[in-house]
Amino acid sequence: MTTDHRPGRLNLNAFLMSTGHHEASWRLPESAPDAVSTNIAYLQRLAQIAESGKLDSIFFADGPGLQSDVGRRPAGSLDPLIVLTAIAGVTERIGLIATASTTYNSPYNLARRFASIDHVSGGRAGWNVVTTAGPDIARNFGLDEQPAHAARYERAAEFLEVAFKLWDSWEDDAILADKAAGVWADATKIHRPEHAGKHFSVHGALTTPRSPQARPLVVQAGSSDDGKDLAARYAEAVFTAHQTLGDAQAFYADLKARAAAVGRDPETVRILPGIVPVIGATEEEALAKERELDELIVPEYARAQLAKTLRLAPEDLPLDRELPADLPSEDEIEGAKSRYTLIVSLARREGLTVRQLIGRLGGGRGHRTFAGTPEQVADALQQWYDAEAADGFNIMPAVLPSGLEQFVDQVLPILRERGLFRTEYEGTTLREHYGLARPANLHTLAALGAHV
Amino acid sequence: MTTDHRPGRLNLNAFLMSTGHHEASWRLPESAPDAVSTNIAYLQRLAQIAESGKLDSIFFADGPGLQSDVGRRPAGSLDPLIVLTAIAGVTERIGLIATASTTYNSPYNLARRFASIDHVSGGRAGWNVVTTAGPDIARNFGLDEQPAHAARYERAAEFLEVAFKLWDSWEDDAILADKAAGVWADATKIHRPEHAGKHFSVHGALTTPRSPQARPLVVQAGSSDDGKDLAARYAEAVFTAHQTLGDAQAFYADLKARAAAVGRDPETVRILPGIVPVIGATEEEALAKERELDELIVPEYARAQLAKTLRLAPEDLPLDRELPADLPSEDEIEGAKSRYTLIVSLARREGLTVRQLIGRLGGGRGHRTFAGTPEQVADALQQWYDAEAADGFNIMPAVLPSGLEQFVDQVLPILRERGLFRTEYEGTTLREHYGLARPANLHTLAALGAHV
Repeated sequence: MTTDHRPGRLNLNAFLMSTGHHEASWRLPESAPDAVSTNIAYLQRLAQIAESGKLDSIFFADGPGLQSDVGRRPAGSLDPLIVLTAIAGVTERIGLIATASTTYNSPYNLARRFASIDHVSGGRAGWNVVTTAGPDIARNFGLDEQPAHAARYERAAEFLEVAFKLWDSWEDDAILADKAAGVWADATKIHRPEHAGKHFSVHGALTTPRSPQARPLVVQAGSSDDGKDLAARYAEAVFTAHQTLGDAQAFYADLKARAAAVGRDPETVRILPGIVPVIGATEEEALAKERELDELIVPEYARAQLAKTLRLAPEDLPLDRELPADLPSEDEIEGAKSRYTLIVSLARREGLTVRQLIGRLGGGRGHRTFAGTPEQVADALQQWYDAEAADGFNIMPAVLPSGLEQFVDQVLPILRERGLFRTEYEGTTLREHYGLARPANLHTLAALGAHV
Repeated sequence: MTTDHRPGRLNLNAFLMSTGHHEASWRLPESAPDAVSTNIAYLQRLAQIAESGKLDSIFFADGPGLQSDVGRRPAGSLDPLIVLTAIAGVTERIGLIATASTTYNSPYNLARRFASIDHVSGGRAGWNVVTTAGPDIARNFGLDEQPAHAARYERAAEFLEVAFKLWDSWEDDAILADKAAGVWADATKIHRPEHAGKHFSVHGALTTPRSPQARPLVVQAGSSDDGKDLAARYAEAVFTAHQTLGDAQAFYADLKARAAAVGRDPETVRILPGIVPVIGATEEEALAKERELDELIVPEYARAQLAKTLRLAPEDLPLDRELPADLPSEDEIEGAKSRYTLIVSLARREGLTVRQLIGRLGGGRGHRTFAGTPEQVADALQQWYDAEAADGFNIMPAVLPSGLEQFVDQVLPILRERGLFRTEYEGTTLREHYGLARPANLHTLAALGAHV
């Protein structure tokens, strides 16, 4: 494991989503009607733009269910592992991070798919581990309600333990291909997990020889207490959402401390807050672009979603009033806990009306929006980095592809001048981009130990 | 739906597997040690050879579990949908058929993945629907034993019904992308399956807009009674294994009759027996090649597998004796019923010793092996086609890539001369290669009906 990347290199991930992260981006003249998350040629082009900027990785959010407000913005998505496999074929170095649910997958199949994409991409796979909130999705999988928050996270931890065992099934030198002796593999170097736990029982070895990275980069994005504990134990990168430097610093210090408390080197957990940059040649131009976008929001859609998050009816949220005083506490929320708290805190702190809150959330669904010149955007990133609020950033362009192109062409050169970002890829795998070693195989380690 | 393809065009599928279907193929000098099913560049090359021959499709078998005899032959496999997505990127027309289990997947996730690969490949996806035999695999998914044969097939039928509903979630014109009005999709044209059945409860719409083919080509490969019923109801192509023309004719007539009995046009169910061609410039050369391969078999591996299939211990099967007289009937088998009966019948019919039986099975695991000149291979295919034993063939080269290259370069020109196979692709989708229409959307049909 590497250490001490401060001062050093930002980790930068491009979070890709149809026409961009601003919910009204699809209504701009520049947005093509087919700039959707089901158009593979379009997604391949976005990935190539990100790779031209030498970004660490690209990332797709995901949930196995269709949102109800399909009128609001480009809806619909393909399986992200299929998408990233198709992108692997037209890129060479950039990391490929897919979201996949531990609640609605089985460990054997999912571990196999991640190992497969790691093989196919030459070691560029990353897994954003999510527990998937929401009763609608639960009902796509035979459940009436989503499992409780704590139970989902307990299952996630065991899911990861099983996946780690499966990824270590094959020692790196298990394949002999000994034609003369007629022995293809050494059966003693292929190990069955024989896992029997509370949530899973998984007997046999993975079908997949150990992959280039051995394991995908493990990413985590839940910022609840349970989410932070899971991240501290397993995550190598953490996507998170903060509106203020103070909140981001507190989260950063908390998560690094939790990682240290479970015996990990805190430098091996990279923390990447989201930022929605809106870039203009002047500050005025950037702010005008942001205003143009906000004015294209249809507030009824956003209000309905906000009401759902707050467990209210839309009519309980008059557009020009502040949020009702009496809202549930985070403890009562079984869905996306930390997002709930972020939204309520933002509204209360700034005394926002529902309409204003919708505007603030329209850009990045709770992530920080920042409108300014390339220099100002670079300053904003560096400020959080220098202040130990971030090891890097999850870049969420308000408008795609133009916002990503502007970030690559205009902001990255400034970051490079300041020595904050790479000029060329130095490694070939995603783990290498993040400065992480390929994990040793537990069985190989055990065998070495036996010989000492 | 098209009809009357006799006399007309064979459907030809290339069944791809590491170094070839003969279990000893990897020991030949020509086989590269990395010619394995986890080497994507190698698999892409095989697919390109098949496409150069204008074959209908390529196909990978699959099971979510690692075989125990990893010494025997190249073991290990990637998720076939990931593999086929990577192949889609380097091919243009050839169909891409993946095996996936209805027993160890959830309908929502799997239907979504097939819709995704259909989008990514421009309408070239096919699904070989399997129920997955074997207790070892069951134990990778929290079960102590495999579900009973009949229960697996009952689940498979419901799984398909759910998948069909999911693939029809979006009507073809659901997306409006109306920027002026701020309405992206017409919510009234996106339908929830709201399925509540014995095995599955699936509420919501698929995340995936209707794909180019609307549905993948549905393929089925089980030849038990349950398997034939499932095929008759749902399959558009059937892979099957027969050693004799008589058996193949009987199967063909039976399955076409079952399809007619459930109201389907029997021509829309294409029956493709497997054949393992071993091609030589002369018959002697082909037979010598076959002998060379058979002599490279390590009989202990094959005997252990045969014993497992027959529910015996390996020592119950002396290599130079015939099978024991007292074996279970197919009714008692909960695994791969029809493969069991095929093996026992073959041994009994020809009075084979265990060693001889192993040799016969070593080429194609029960599929018909045929060694001869290109002309003889073409004759063998035409004979079965003319005799209503086949609508086409599942081509299983004993050795890859050479056996596939020989088939494409030497056998296909003869079939083309006889008017039995295409010279160029006529359509762009796999359904078109098989002469099948894109299915109408049930909801659109219902709406049309309502207006009449």
